[in-house]
Amino acid sequence: MRIGLDVGGTKIAGIARADDGTVLAHVRRATGSGGDAVLTGILDAAGELRAQLADPDLRSIGIGIPGLVDAEAGLVVHAVNLGVESLAIAEHVQRMLGVPCFVENDVKAAALGAAALRDDGAPIAYLNLGTGVAAGIIVDGRIWRGARGTAGEVGHFVVDPNGRLCGCGQRGCIETLCGGGALARAWGGAGELPVKDILDAADAGDDVAIALRDDLFRGAAAAVRALVLSVDVEVIVIGGGLTALTGRLEPGIHAALRADAAQSSFLRSLRLDERIEMLPADSPVAAVGAALLGSVPAKTIALDKEIIVHG
Amino acid sequence: MRIGLDVGGTKIAGIARADDGTVLAHVRRATGSGGDAVLTGILDAAGELRAQLADPDLRSIGIGIPGLVDAEAGLVVHAVNLGVESLAIAEHVQRMLGVPCFVENDVKAAALGAAALRDDGAPIAYLNLGTGVAAGIIVDGRIWRGARGTAGEVGHFVVDPNGRLCGCGQRGCIETLCGGGALARAWGGAGELPVKDILDAADAGDDVAIALRDDLFRGAAAAVRALVLSVDVEVIVIGGGLTALTGRLEPGIHAALRADAAQSSFLRSLRLDERIEMLPADSPVAAVGAALLGSVPAKTIALDKEIIVHG
Repeated sequence: MRIGLDVGGTKIAGIARADDGTVLAHVRRATGSGGDAVLTGILDAAGELRAQLADPDLRSIGIGIPGLVDAEAGLVVHAVNLGVESLAIAEHVQRMLGVPCFVENDVKAAALGAAALRDDGAPIAYLNLGTGVAAGIIVDGRIWRGARGTAGEVGHFVVDPNGRLCGCGQRGCIETLCGGGALARAWGGAGELPVKDILDAADAGDDVAIALRDDLFRGAAAAVRALVLSVDVEVIVIGGGLTALTGRLEPGIHAALRADAAQSSFLRSLRLDERIEMLPADSPVAAVGAALLGSVPAKTIALDKEIIVHG
Repeated sequence: MRIGLDVGGTKIAGIARADDGTVLAHVRRATGSGGDAVLTGILDAAGELRAQLADPDLRSIGIGIPGLVDAEAGLVVHAVNLGVESLAIAEHVQRMLGVPCFVENDVKAAALGAAALRDDGAPIAYLNLGTGVAAGIIVDGRIWRGARGTAGEVGHFVVDPNGRLCGCGQRGCIETLCGGGALARAWGGAGELPVKDILDAADAGDDVAIALRDDLFRGAAAAVRALVLSVDVEVIVIGGGLTALTGRLEPGIHAALRADAAQSSFLRSLRLDERIEMLPADSPVAAVGAALLGSVPAKTIALDKEIIVHG
């Protein structure tokens, strides 16, 4: 049995997973801010999961967490919305629980979970539409990091040189079009769910909201296109906070992809609108992926030298 | 010994390569138009290479050719600038020469050759700046095709919704900024080397030419950025017809990358201007890669199922 925890800014969602894929137990609890609160939350969530189980055989615990993760060292840095500057999670959790602990960026963990849940062998990207926009890429059943860990950072492709300024310093990044944070800033409303407010106002005919809604859909479509024209994954699984609006998001993204295809036989040949899959809101993919971290070594690109040398 | 031929619209460039990487012989000849002329050119070029060699042990012949290639079937379709609609190259060449023949898209073959010549194990992209713009991606020493063969098609990322119309039907593709064909159309001049004419006119102060020169440099920079933010290759090797202008191209691309980095600490952290390498004009990478086709199976993405199942 392996435990996987999705540690977010407001909550921890966790599962205990049998080796055959069966989910044996769930847990959901609030997250505190700061390193100590995060570690306490992780240990408490793991404890709650073990308490639910007869089988005591815990083989590993995996943590998916937003921020810059050094998976080999098992630490996270710049986990801004957790109030964490740097935290050696794996070392601490291993010492406390006596089992191997693996740490991964939450989007990459979710990608691994999404691929495991699909379980059809296809190379996929998990496109996370949340406050920010990023993708995790799974090839050969493993997380694709790339040479320096920036694989899947499609949120920072520039698609409009005259677009809104992005937090990254560029203008017109995909994230400025379809990132929840950027949309909320552009909208300026102070609601609980700014993107929902935007969609509601657009439905009511508000011109600014209609323009932002168009940005959301064409931004997501651009991210899908970018993933197929670079890595060429077979399927793009779309998840993240905005999938709470999936009933309104999915048709909009499909319409945007079809509108692009209508102008371009090249795009039509890619059949992009048949290659996206929306996750239901609160799908536990990140926790599932975190549970798998102990059994799936990440794909760090390395050359099979002899293939060339014996060429 | 393996033969590799780079079959282009105007010429065939070929090499004979020993298993240790030594180039044993070169050939260069004009290409005719149409299927028969292409096949004759291939057989004649192979014959010329063998005639130069004492060692008769030919293990394979590889063909890099522009167009849509079905590598498994060994045929090319839509090789427009060769006057070829569909041609079963491998079958014909194998029958005539009695050795295995492998066919690959020329950009993908060049990528394989560029990786072999670098021989440092890094995952690379070969970015071809020619009439069109496309990249070949090499991971684990193999050609990365992606799920449906569109990996590396960064020329058709849209980077400006108000940009020039692309042959693919979209507006503002990277190829409309830095593809030789698109630049020539935008310039309208009828010179031999339109991009050289544009750079000369820009140096002479022509405003239209200066704008097109800026497009060329920022388009190439956008392609480099896109490859790092998606696949995250370690190095981008830049080749193709435009490298005939490398002395003027390289500083311009570096300047464009540095200008982007100046606005964005995120881009600065990617050190893109340290990750590009320009090939000298007429570098034989495509022929070298073609020679390697017989010894390097292409990377067709497949899931190591058990990794997940035993999760």
